[in-house]
Amino acid sequence: MNASVSTPALIALDWGTTSLRAYLLGADGAVLDTRASPAGIMNLPAGRFDQAFEETCGAWLDAHATLAAPLPVIAAGMVGSAQGWVEAPYVETPAGADALVAGIVTVKAARGVEVHVVPGVLERGVLPNVMRGEETQIFGALASEPSLGTSGGALIGLPGTHAKWAFVSDERIERFYTFMTGETFAALRDHSILGRTMQPGASHDEQAFIRGVDTARDAGHAGVLATIFTTRTLGLTGQLTGEQQPDYLSGLLIGHELRGLNEVLTRERSALAGKTLRLIGNDALCDRYRAALARFGCHDAPTVAQATERGLYRIAARAGLVAAPVRTA
Amino acid sequence: MNASVSTPALIALDWGTTSLRAYLLGADGAVLDTRASPAGIMNLPAGRFDQAFEETCGAWLDAHATLAAPLPVIAAGMVGSAQGWVEAPYVETPAGADALVAGIVTVKAARGVEVHVVPGVLERGVLPNVMRGEETQIFGALASEPSLGTSGGALIGLPGTHAKWAFVSDERIERFYTFMTGETFAALRDHSILGRTMQPGASHDEQAFIRGVDTARDAGHAGVLATIFTTRTLGLTGQLTGEQQPDYLSGLLIGHELRGLNEVLTRERSALAGKTLRLIGNDALCDRYRAALARFGCHDAPTVAQATERGLYRIAARAGLVAAPVRTA
Repeated sequence: MNASVSTPALIALDWGTTSLRAYLLGADGAVLDTRASPAGIMNLPAGRFDQAFEETCGAWLDAHATLAAPLPVIAAGMVGSAQGWVEAPYVETPAGADALVAGIVTVKAARGVEVHVVPGVLERGVLPNVMRGEETQIFGALASEPSLGTSGGALIGLPGTHAKWAFVSDERIERFYTFMTGETFAALRDHSILGRTMQPGASHDEQAFIRGVDTARDAGHAGVLATIFTTRTLGLTGQLTGEQQPDYLSGLLIGHELRGLNEVLTRERSALAGKTLRLIGNDALCDRYRAALARFGCHDAPTVAQATERGLYRIAARAGLVAAPVRTA
Repeated sequence: MNASVSTPALIALDWGTTSLRAYLLGADGAVLDTRASPAGIMNLPAGRFDQAFEETCGAWLDAHATLAAPLPVIAAGMVGSAQGWVEAPYVETPAGADALVAGIVTVKAARGVEVHVVPGVLERGVLPNVMRGEETQIFGALASEPSLGTSGGALIGLPGTHAKWAFVSDERIERFYTFMTGETFAALRDHSILGRTMQPGASHDEQAFIRGVDTARDAGHAGVLATIFTTRTLGLTGQLTGEQQPDYLSGLLIGHELRGLNEVLTRERSALAGKTLRLIGNDALCDRYRAALARFGCHDAPTVAQATERGLYRIAARAGLVAAPVRTA
């Protein structure tokens, strides 16, 4: 083992709405330790950022303090929003890593350490779009696979509460879309008539999920406001059990997201069918998206591993917070 | 005044999920009295239908009892669902008034009166659809304007929690769509991030509403899951105040509903632009839909007055519950 690998060189924080994940990284970006906390910014009383930071990272900072300097700290996500610890104003598309580095805002923690907060990205226009945290993951994907950002551009999907689809070229985020798929699913399941006939299933019902995807793809032209009602009517007509309805609705919504994305691509003389893209997100959700993408003819959509920590490391290195050269593979 | 006008001949009930509206009708269908109650089927403890019926209609039945027979009673809406007073199984499309009459199911109230419950309508297929109550309103519209059902077919919109759009020809409901527009709006406003930056406006903001409609029409190709996020991002970028956001979102969702309907029409070589249609619903909501329809080039969409009571009367007359001939205007 190389000595530099095992020497902590950076604390990297993925600090979002509902959770805080902390990584202790070596000088070459290797993950030496991790911590997870429910201290997302929505779960914190105002002004308690310092306490959450101390609870999560204090021991690392104590253990690895040197005479020269404390460990540098970088953070991305909603921690940089107006409701966060310090606001790091959005940088605008097209946004490269240098723009993100230039937009870093620091906040001094109680113990004197400076926390470097990565800005989010804003796209202006008729349909303005914002991201916070995903930009860092996207640059993590580019760090893992540099050819993504150069060879004719890449499409990167980040499934979730607010799913993002980013078009990347020349190592910059050119533009992106946000689909409120996850949050709309939860709102409809928990707060509409559709939830009343649903029953929690013992496991994921792939068949019901695919049926939803296919319905959106083949019969979704009236739009999602029309098709979602079939979650109920297929139940009323004995074609979908209560246990199948959540997965059917999930398939419908993801199917409509991909239908919309495909329409965007079609207007650019492209299509999901045959396309190569990358996914970033948790494994179960990426698996769902891969299954849905396959129904649209897209069979090359691997998940990028460790995009978050690689992105944080890459931006920190570019900002000079760690001395090692940026790893490109 | 004609004597027949003032003689009560029918009690007609519009008994839905959240309310019960009762009409005392004359032999010619004129409305002699009305009662409204919050005793919708969702607000009733199991088995309390009789009590709600008695509280709402008991005085009418007492006052107008004759030696010959009590006043006939007809009811439409969710009262005929599996969760209602008695289940009146759906009749299938294409559904005319005679099919509805044949599908009437009766339930005997505690005081011995028979309540005649009109069935809902079911459309089978990949996207099954159901309605309960709207079928009666649609036949009310045809009673008001018989040419609607014959001259090449008509399109009738019923805005609401679950908006319906019905294609009517040869005096039959041929097929219909359900858009969960109203319920999705409420779920997103009350249970998603979009509601967090909203503030209740003092009045309807027409400009914000139209902006939403136009965004759905002109930039909605990625679908409603994508465009709704702009409710937030237009706020973040200072283009939409908190007070404007609810009306903008309302315009977006109604705009997507009409975009979807227009897509259905386009596939039949028709379009909303230049189309003549009818609306049934409360005045404020129909006004919103008319404003939105105008943005799609449809400028002929009057509201049908008294569709519910006219429909109940028409079906009752067809069922022989009232002796007078069906009024056609």
